[in-house]
Amino acid sequence: MTPPAPSGIASNESAMSGEARRARAIAWIKNVHDDVTALFTRLDRGSEFREDTWDRAEGGGGHSRVMIDGATFEKGGVNRSVVYGRLPALAAAKLGGRGVSDGESQFFATGVSLVFHPRSPMIPTVHLNVRYFELSDDDGNLRDAWYGGGTDITPMHPFPDDVKHFHRTLASICDRFHPSLHTRFKPWCDEYFRNTHRNNETRGCGGIFFDHVRPGEDASGMDAATTMAFVDAIGRSLTEAYGPIVERRRDEPYGERERNFQLVRRGRYVEFNLVHDRGTHFGLHTAARIESVLMSLPPLAAWPYAPSWEPDTFESELLQMLAPRDWLAD
Amino acid sequence: MTPPAPSGIASNESAMSGEARRARAIAWIKNVHDDVTALFTRLDRGSEFREDTWDRAEGGGGHSRVMIDGATFEKGGVNRSVVYGRLPALAAAKLGGRGVSDGESQFFATGVSLVFHPRSPMIPTVHLNVRYFELSDDDGNLRDAWYGGGTDITPMHPFPDDVKHFHRTLASICDRFHPSLHTRFKPWCDEYFRNTHRNNETRGCGGIFFDHVRPGEDASGMDAATTMAFVDAIGRSLTEAYGPIVERRRDEPYGERERNFQLVRRGRYVEFNLVHDRGTHFGLHTAARIESVLMSLPPLAAWPYAPSWEPDTFESELLQMLAPRDWLAD
Repeated sequence: MTPPAPSGIASNESAMSGEARRARAIAWIKNVHDDVTALFTRLDRGSEFREDTWDRAEGGGGHSRVMIDGATFEKGGVNRSVVYGRLPALAAAKLGGRGVSDGESQFFATGVSLVFHPRSPMIPTVHLNVRYFELSDDDGNLRDAWYGGGTDITPMHPFPDDVKHFHRTLASICDRFHPSLHTRFKPWCDEYFRNTHRNNETRGCGGIFFDHVRPGEDASGMDAATTMAFVDAIGRSLTEAYGPIVERRRDEPYGERERNFQLVRRGRYVEFNLVHDRGTHFGLHTAARIESVLMSLPPLAAWPYAPSWEPDTFESELLQMLAPRDWLAD
Repeated sequence: MTPPAPSGIASNESAMSGEARRARAIAWIKNVHDDVTALFTRLDRGSEFREDTWDRAEGGGGHSRVMIDGATFEKGGVNRSVVYGRLPALAAAKLGGRGVSDGESQFFATGVSLVFHPRSPMIPTVHLNVRYFELSDDDGNLRDAWYGGGTDITPMHPFPDDVKHFHRTLASICDRFHPSLHTRFKPWCDEYFRNTHRNNETRGCGGIFFDHVRPGEDASGMDAATTMAFVDAIGRSLTEAYGPIVERRRDEPYGERERNFQLVRRGRYVEFNLVHDRGTHFGLHTAARIESVLMSLPPLAAWPYAPSWEPDTFESELLQMLAPRDWLAD
């Protein structure tokens, strides 16, 4: 007899076989991966991706697509991966998993993650990630399942209109699924991407961030299909949210001063990723392929000593733009 | 009645008043600070240090001397600091303190720390630190006291003779104090400076590293005065250990390829300092002045994707030099 599904799992999800559910997630992630690959190939206007495929000894593997010295992007990459295996109960609990009993669980995770560092300081650096996670008991019964993800931009030059465009586009995508989503996931992003050691400075101008969004169980009341559609839409959001920013800034002139400031801001990006980012730490402390984990690091970054900027310069304007605000307000 | 000194503290040390002992340590560290400042001013042949003085709200403060865009050093700095206050018992135990009872302890720490990033890839990056630490009970009775420190070089170009010179000079300094010191402290350094996430690659070619060397109590049997003289000699060791390397490499020609490889190796330096270094983490998670803590980061660093080097190139030769070995052997 199959044990009853825990209350946490929407019935239509647990009714699918685990195999079918995971095959669906893998196909979905592959599709998102191909979609963002096509977008950034188009946006770069010149370079193709190099693909590296890797296997994980404990189960699973990934495909890293990397763009090096592109026409528009100095360095960028899109990873997709599937990882699975056994996980100690403590580790499962740490991940926020529910319904985990003593001993080990089985876990399954798949996702897409990207970071693109444009050559021009006039175009913001962009990050996006969507992922699906499952915990099962030893008999293969689903115990918990959730989505996580988000996207955020890190401008190196103050164009408030670009940040507005990014946030407004994300808000309108979120609103298609439920009016509460953007209100919850925008501040979560502001909170997450913080260099706490830099007086709590944000990495960039945010976007959205979410985790533990359980199909059919989110506070919004979205059903399982709507939840998946929402995360899928976020995975494909950059066409609308980021593409137009690249197009309108790609011919913007800049000089050495803008480039130097970009390198300093990239240094802060490195600090966040190496000191604070949970995804990076997860990669560094597991047996993931290191070049895929650290693909997010910029091609070049600078750490001048104690840089300071005069008021009314573009540099201090950018720093002011980092303070989280309501970008939907006029 | 004064309680008897714990067995851990050499009698001549605990017989001194705490105030006198700490004043001696502060004066010693200031002296070492001035000594290395003079050395690097001389080695740079052109630039002067900028000094920033900072206070720590909880007690103490520091002096950061920084060299920016020097003739020889692209970026470098020498910090000295004195910090003191109260420490929870757990934190004291984590630091390796003994004789710590329940509740809080009083701590006192003073030290000098330096990192210099030469402009030329033909000159190795150098790091040195010496420090003195004390834990006392609420009545001011000394419970534990120790020295820590070390120095190591990170070559960006393979000149085995430079690494030999560095290690041999350190060995000969160590040997003046006790024949066991270099044998213990050289492998400790090889073990500490590891990018475990990079297949355990070392940050550079090592040197020496030590911690919890208690005056009058080290395994070598050195008395308190000899212990202090040893740590002092390490604090001043770069004149002999590093100075000649700078002099013989400063006019070595190099090109873009050597510079690019230097930037990649500096990226690994950043990874070690931000992901693994205990001193940096201590600074990031306490209220220390952040620009002084991160002074150690290079002025410029690069992260190309998955760089690889042909056999029999200087790059692969350098990577082979990173594997710890007995540099005293011929």
